Amino acid sequence: MKGVMLTRFPEARIIDLTHEILVHWPAEAGFWLHRSYRSFPVGTVHVAVVDPGVGTGREVLAAEVDEHLFVAPDNGLLAPLLDRHVGAHVVAVDLARPELRLGAVSDTFHGRDVFAPIAAELASGRLRLDQLGKPKSDWVPSWLEEPTLKAGEVTGRVLTFDNFGNIITNIDGESIASFGSAVVRIAGREILLRRTYGEVAPGDYVALVNAFGVVEVARAEDSAAVGLRVERGAPVSVATKS
Amino acid sequence: MKGVMLTRFPEARIIDLTHEILVHWPAEAGFWLHRSYRSFPVGTVHVAVVDPGVGTGREVLAAEVDEHLFVAPDNGLLAPLLDRHVGAHVVAVDLARPELRLGAVSDTFHGRDVFAPIAAELASGRLRLDQLGKPKSDWVPSWLEEPTLKAGEVTGRVLTFDNFGNIITNIDGESIASFGSAVVRIAGREILLRRTYGEVAPGDYVALVNAFGVVEVARAEDSAAVGLRVERGAPVSVATKS
Amino acid sequence: MKGVMLTRFPEARIIDLTHEILVHWPAEAGFWLHRSYRSFPVGTVHVAVVDPGVGTGREVLAAEVDEHLFVAPDNGLLAPLLDRHVGAHVVAVDLARPELRLGAVSDTFHGRDVFAPIAAELASGRLRLDQLGKPKSDWVPSWLEEPTLKAGEVTGRVLTFDNFGNIITNIDGESIASFGSAVVRIAGREILLRRTYGEVAPGDYVALVNAFGVVEVARAEDSAAVGLRVERGAPVSVATKS
Repeated sequence: MKGVMLTRFPEARIIDLTHEILVHWPAEAGFWLHRSYRSFPVGTVHVAVVDPGVGTGREVLAAEVDEHLFVAPDNGLLAPLLDRHVGAHVVAVDLARPELRLGAVSDTFHGRDVFAPIAAELASGRLRLDQLGKPKSDWVPSWLEEPTLKAGEVTGRVLTFDNFGNIITNIDGESIASFGSAVVRIAGREILLRRTYGEVAPGDYVALVNAFGVVEVARAEDSAAVGLRVERGAPVSVATKS
Repeated sequence: MKGVMLTRFPEARIIDLTHEILVHWPAEAGFWLHRSYRSFPVGTVHVAVVDPGVGTGREVLAAEVDEHLFVAPDNGLLAPLLDRHVGAHVVAVDLARPELRLGAVSDTFHGRDVFAPIAAELASGRLRLDQLGKPKSDWVPSWLEEPTLKAGEVTGRVLTFDNFGNIITNIDGESIASFGSAVVRIAGREILLRRTYGEVAPGDYVALVNAFGVVEVARAEDSAAVGLRVERGAPVSVATKS
Repeated sequence: MKGVMLTRFPEARIIDLTHEILVHWPAEAGFWLHRSYRSFPVGTVHVAVVDPGVGTGREVLAAEVDEHLFVAPDNGLLAPLLDRHVGAHVVAVDLARPELRLGAVSDTFHGRDVFAPIAAELASGRLRLDQLGKPKSDWVPSWLEEPTLKAGEVTGRVLTFDNFGNIITNIDGESIASFGSAVVRIAGREILLRRTYGEVAPGDYVALVNAFGVVEVARAEDSAAVGLRVERGAPVSVATKS
């Protein structure tokens, strides 16, 4: 993919956001993209290719949100981002457009043959979003339902684990901002919501709103994922402390 | 290696093709280089350092194929590429040439002390291939014999596995292009050759000619390598379907 | 972190030295930084964020050694480097300085919110070391004591393992330069000190002074770490051969 990008746009500065995500599950790639894009320069083209439907009829989306551009398969990956930005400019990329100069496209590696070329054309400024295809206002929905809120309690799901074994959920910190003192319930435990890892002794569990703005369960200087043995999709709730 | 390259050539754009290959087995590095270089810009210098003979008398090769440059130990790594390009310009690098300014060379990290400097000098344009050493027309042979072809059947070997657990062989798609309907035999199974992963249900096996031009055995949304328990070097054949 | 760096300094050339180090143990990150920085161009800013104390009161150090700049938490990570360079310019970064424009700082991801901005300001040349904070002449000590030397024998510790399973110690090659023929004692074995891996048969153990200038124990074309089952911190000694 990088070779193709540099062939089309030699000045490209290419950054790997992550390759350490679950294969065949677009939710995780979408999460990191959604929660990280604001740290990149305005005008960045963000490309994600977790694409179990490669070679089938699934469409390719390109979108602009907050002056950032996104390119990904239409398989739910971008849904959490796009659902939060009503009116964002989204197009279904027409791969037959001659300006894309796609040439021979393999059936199994659209990252190289489709996504990289589209990203390079956008990043170079040779093509604009509206030149890629027709506007689109619906897309394949998200892989995880949004958290549910009832008085004093938000229930969500485990989304992923980071390199430290911290458990990352889809519960937005803003949704519990009014809770004051709160506890997180996960895997039969109640864990007090705090501010940072250093507030508990090594080996103890701690919950916090992490630097990506979502609720996280950690174990100081240890792996919460190993300790609690939860899976992606497991339920998590945050409640005001009684 | 990257620090050394940027010290000698600050404008270098350095891309990691892969580090996720078997150590001590040059065949896999050679495969990815051979099957990927065309995606990079003409003039790219491709460096590969899978080098169990570091510090011994093995030679260093530099070569030009299709307007791409290659630098690697002479240990079979480049053989599949060079064997297919008779007449390519290949030299044995003379490490004593003063223009290389190699200085102190360690006995164990020629990637940093030998290969990175050579690559930077080539990429910067300060040195040309013919200035690096004398032409060479033979090299250490490939680690895997080429596939054998008899009427209606090609027999090759498992070369590697990708991040999805797909099984990648050394059987060239062109060698079976005339077969029409075909089956792949591997680990006691017969798997129908198709076009892409999405043609079978999740969990089912599928064989196809992949985006690198070779026969691959996959398991839709699952790992074929785990499912079939084959090792690198295991036999694989493709036959016309009777 | 890279997005933040490129936002502040679009011309930055960003190289990952390593992410394959033990979490929560600054000694290993410090080792690789200390033993690799000379391979990078003069003026490089080296950033390391192994930071179990993130969000607590630990300080942030910035330093200049040999015309290279370093930014890291004050948790012992930089101690082996700074201890060897008496008189180096070291400052405790004052995060409140308005020139840093830090904005909202999370409690858990100072890599993105603190270290990346500092590194980008230094690399761009907008801020100099003396503008970041007050000089500092002491720091949190190293996680591993320095090796001890008695007549004809140096005793140190296992520091880390590389991707090949080679065992890397904190014993400096210079400290045994006068030994002539020597043996390394580790995990109840005596292994002869040699020059390179290729001097022993595949499967045999070999000790050598590696390309980073420290004593290493390897197993030719195999993993010494798996074979000897030693842990980080395990004792290792080098003695003149009797």
